[in-house]
Amino acid sequence: MAILKQSDFDARLEAARETAAKNKLDAIVVFSTECEPAQVRYFSDYWPSFETAAVLVPAKGDPALIIGPESLTYASMRTRIPDIIQIMDFRESSQPDYPGSKLPKWTDVVKRYKLRKIGLSGYFLFPHVMMISLAKAMGGMKNIVPADEMIRPLYMKKSPGEIRCIKAAAKASEAGFKAVLEAIEPGMTESELCGIATRAMTAAGAESTGYPIWCCSGPNSCQAISRPTMRKVKRGEIIHFSIGAKVEGYSASIGRPVVLGKCPKSTLDFLQVGLDAANMTFDEMRAGRRAGDVAKKVHRYVIDKGYGDTLLYGPCHGTGQMECEYPFLETSSDYTLEAGMTFMQDMFMHRGTKDGFRWEDGLLVKARGPAEMLSGYGRKINVLDR
Amino acid sequence: MAILKQSDFDARLEAARETAAKNKLDAIVVFSTECEPAQVRYFSDYWPSFETAAVLVPAKGDPALIIGPESLTYASMRTRIPDIIQIMDFRESSQPDYPGSKLPKWTDVVKRYKLRKIGLSGYFLFPHVMMISLAKAMGGMKNIVPADEMIRPLYMKKSPGEIRCIKAAAKASEAGFKAVLEAIEPGMTESELCGIATRAMTAAGAESTGYPIWCCSGPNSCQAISRPTMRKVKRGEIIHFSIGAKVEGYSASIGRPVVLGKCPKSTLDFLQVGLDAANMTFDEMRAGRRAGDVAKKVHRYVIDKGYGDTLLYGPCHGTGQMECEYPFLETSSDYTLEAGMTFMQDMFMHRGTKDGFRWEDGLLVKARGPAEMLSGYGRKINVLDR
Repeated sequence: MAILKQSDFDARLEAARETAAKNKLDAIVVFSTECEPAQVRYFSDYWPSFETAAVLVPAKGDPALIIGPESLTYASMRTRIPDIIQIMDFRESSQPDYPGSKLPKWTDVVKRYKLRKIGLSGYFLFPHVMMISLAKAMGGMKNIVPADEMIRPLYMKKSPGEIRCIKAAAKASEAGFKAVLEAIEPGMTESELCGIATRAMTAAGAESTGYPIWCCSGPNSCQAISRPTMRKVKRGEIIHFSIGAKVEGYSASIGRPVVLGKCPKSTLDFLQVGLDAANMTFDEMRAGRRAGDVAKKVHRYVIDKGYGDTLLYGPCHGTGQMECEYPFLETSSDYTLEAGMTFMQDMFMHRGTKDGFRWEDGLLVKARGPAEMLSGYGRKINVLDR
Repeated sequence: MAILKQSDFDARLEAARETAAKNKLDAIVVFSTECEPAQVRYFSDYWPSFETAAVLVPAKGDPALIIGPESLTYASMRTRIPDIIQIMDFRESSQPDYPGSKLPKWTDVVKRYKLRKIGLSGYFLFPHVMMISLAKAMGGMKNIVPADEMIRPLYMKKSPGEIRCIKAAAKASEAGFKAVLEAIEPGMTESELCGIATRAMTAAGAESTGYPIWCCSGPNSCQAISRPTMRKVKRGEIIHFSIGAKVEGYSASIGRPVVLGKCPKSTLDFLQVGLDAANMTFDEMRAGRRAGDVAKKVHRYVIDKGYGDTLLYGPCHGTGQMECEYPFLETSSDYTLEAGMTFMQDMFMHRGTKDGFRWEDGLLVKARGPAEMLSGYGRKINVLDR
């Protein structure tokens, strides 16, 4: 049974309609790709594969899902928006030829919806070639306004349905890390360990991974962003996991260091400072606080412990349909935390190119008291006798 | 042990240098994203995650890998190109703020490499916002030429190292399908079955899946492009698998229908026509033949059997770093097959929105005789008594 209802999507579309009207735009168009599907999925429940996609929400009237030439059957069976328009621009980037195809063009869409001025979200993803053709149809770039910042307020606070999806993704992520803890042995490859997590997460209700998950071990563990390799994990080194599941489009993540065999004392200290800072974050993330103050307090703790040069970025980032989405939580962040906001507590620390780790779990800002922790399985220093 | 050597990458870079010189360009720039990493990986062995990336190959002198603000540690440990440049434009599309960052700009790169005219490959992916900033640095769009077609001849025929990677990916894909055949039971979700395949492929040497693999069952099976859902597979329906592994950047794919319990006679006939057409394709894909003639012959067979309206596209597409890459094989294809080209034999057929399936395996065009089949495990009508 799906968690999100048609009424959830209807409410989102209505909010986008209001955003268009308020900004004196004839429509909001959101754009997504295979690896950045969030915005199109938010409004339509559809996420593209191979091709790209958009949702057009006019200030008045019915929305449309815009897809490429090959996705009609797939999209028809997924979309919560019945109107579907196919445009050649949304084909694969390898630009297959579709002899005899008579798909409509942007000019047809502009005419049909009487578009004079539109807001475009996913603006920073939008390919140049598509922008040329859209701008031509719209009578120039002056009639296309970046709309990412207009759309953001819609998903800054999560609805009860969204929170249920995020919690379900967090639970599936825990199942992934549990399977890793049970199976891990020296000599397994980083990629294989990710496969074990994926299998367990999908068995626990995940539709897929939430992002390209990784295990990075030994010297690789110093990478804040990574991908798994064929390297075999060894005893005595940090094995850094970033594992996350996706449920109905919502991503979670669990970050954990694991050590097999004996763990050197200096590494234990390093991991513990990160864990203490991570735990402190949950206590600090309270409604009414200025985001930058939380970041400063957590970073101050790490700096006072002598690990200031091991920090790379702020202690939290927004989460939802994208595992990492706006708002970020940096020492410079000037917004106020509100109940219903969801974040990833994300404490990454690295000792130069020697090694590093991440402690990460989701959190929900509550009306009162510390944040709710959305996952906690294995949130301790896991030194395993293998 | 990696299959590809530094010498493989050096040869590719040298070919790009020659392409730049031949086209009177100061450099070739190739661009990639998280979900379309092929071109950057081809030249650098690096593939971006979250951020985007490019490789700049000057007509004279050393190449550079271009990345975003957060990927330096990860990229440094993967790239075959030692020079790395970080540009803010390559950050995540959610546009995080990096207070105090002093990364170089396109203008610095243009000055350093004395670029007056460049070829840009990955042109159809390149975001508009980045194009604006690149064009400004280059003195206008007139100095940026689309280069995808210039680069294509480099990977139309595969090197021995590339063929080894593709074969290894095909073997790992077979392990994925084998695990599915062993584990599948009515009531498992499509997503879980994909997790089982992923786990087995990564245990068999895959670095990851080759693309977002899918299982789509019952009415979902009519989707040529799909993603797995929470739907539980049932007896008597077509369960359509597209499963593929990636090895050192090279993707393979295996397409198979599976039926649990009893298979209706009409479905058996439908599946058999597809399999016969698929098998015929391997025999037709011979060096020296015109590609369009192969497509016509295979489609003629399907049409003569009365299934013409179940066809969606040509019987093969190119494969390599992208599971689906140029060249396509349509009835309109006018190129000649050559030894060393690799394709996916890809026979997708669907009965409207009722159901559908795919037979798919990789093939290598040989100097003489029929094509070599790169995977064949379970290439038969799998009706399982479960």
